[in-house]
Amino acid sequence: MVTHPNASRRSESSRRAILTAALELVNEVGYAKLSIEGIAARAGVGKQTIYRWWPSKGTVLFEAFLMLNEGEDGEPAALPDTGDLEADLKTVLRATVEELNDPSYDEPMRALNTAITEDSVLAAAYAERLDGPMKEVKKQRLRSAQRAGQLAEDLDLDVAVDMVWGPVLNRWLQRAAPLTTDYADSVVTTALSGLRPRDPAS
Amino acid sequence: MVTHPNASRRSESSRRAILTAALELVNEVGYAKLSIEGIAARAGVGKQTIYRWWPSKGTVLFEAFLMLNEGEDGEPAALPDTGDLEADLKTVLRATVEELNDPSYDEPMRALNTAITEDSVLAAAYAERLDGPMKEVKKQRLRSAQRAGQLAEDLDLDVAVDMVWGPVLNRWLQRAAPLTTDYADSVVTTALSGLRPRDPAS
Repeated sequence: MVTHPNASRRSESSRRAILTAALELVNEVGYAKLSIEGIAARAGVGKQTIYRWWPSKGTVLFEAFLMLNEGEDGEPAALPDTGDLEADLKTVLRATVEELNDPSYDEPMRALNTAITEDSVLAAAYAERLDGPMKEVKKQRLRSAQRAGQLAEDLDLDVAVDMVWGPVLNRWLQRAAPLTTDYADSVVTTALSGLRPRDPAS
Repeated sequence: MVTHPNASRRSESSRRAILTAALELVNEVGYAKLSIEGIAARAGVGKQTIYRWWPSKGTVLFEAFLMLNEGEDGEPAALPDTGDLEADLKTVLRATVEELNDPSYDEPMRALNTAITEDSVLAAAYAERLDGPMKEVKKQRLRSAQRAGQLAEDLDLDVAVDMVWGPVLNRWLQRAAPLTTDYADSVVTTALSGLRPRDPAS
């Protein structure tokens, strides 16, 4: 046995304390002022304990997000599939808008975005472990609609996912305009129908 | 006369030196390590000269971007309008992709995005002075297409702009996947046609 069970349990509880402290602190002070020292103090551990596991504040924050997203079985939940694609996408995108507008999520998610914007290694980890699995779940829902003939046969599902979720994420990040559920509805309708007129007179 | 002409000229040349230094430095060290001290040293001015005009490194960087975007007449250029909307949008979006992939633009633009993500006052200035005028130019092109019957009559042009530019900006920021001109073409085609099948059998 390499690790004594008590040591392993202590280590797991330190890990959770550190990740929770990182989320709380970033919410209070923002990413620019988040520091390993601050996280250590809040979690009641030494700085070296954090540096043993993570090289930077960005990686701590990323791990904290992974912890938040861990389901019972470690898999992200499937999107609703009632057979009505437009209604299902509106349900999901409205929930995303509400989450992004929730002050307790807004700041940590901005921080994570800053971290991955600045660190390409972290961006790769994010793409693989957080964004990738979520994207797969979105594509599953679109694939089901495509099989039902509700989406174009030759549609690139990666582009389709970006088309539905990209505008909302971009508007949120740039704070270009208020992010409302009406906007979410409008994005879904417009993405599905396209910008061109439907049913031309010809 | 409030300001002596020589003083005014010196002041303008200091201002340009500071903004140029900010762009060069952020390119070399990234936004997290950009500092007012570093900008002052590079520009050959005192820290107080910078603080007299700008409250933070983010606002210096924003002003540097405004300087880059100033045309001869201070107006952003109109988008191409050959009458072929799809071709024109592909031309513009490919140019955007090439700019975002250019290392000398990539880092300063990431930094600006980080700055506006972290600072809601700066985000408002960005929306009003940089993003807003560019968005108006995009909407002008779409309005011309709408008048020509190439876009749906009831289309919300703000949503339409987000639909065409949002996915590219989002993919670039999140580094979710390589940003290619093929991707830009695909976004334009998909946005115009929509995700649903065209010409249904019915």
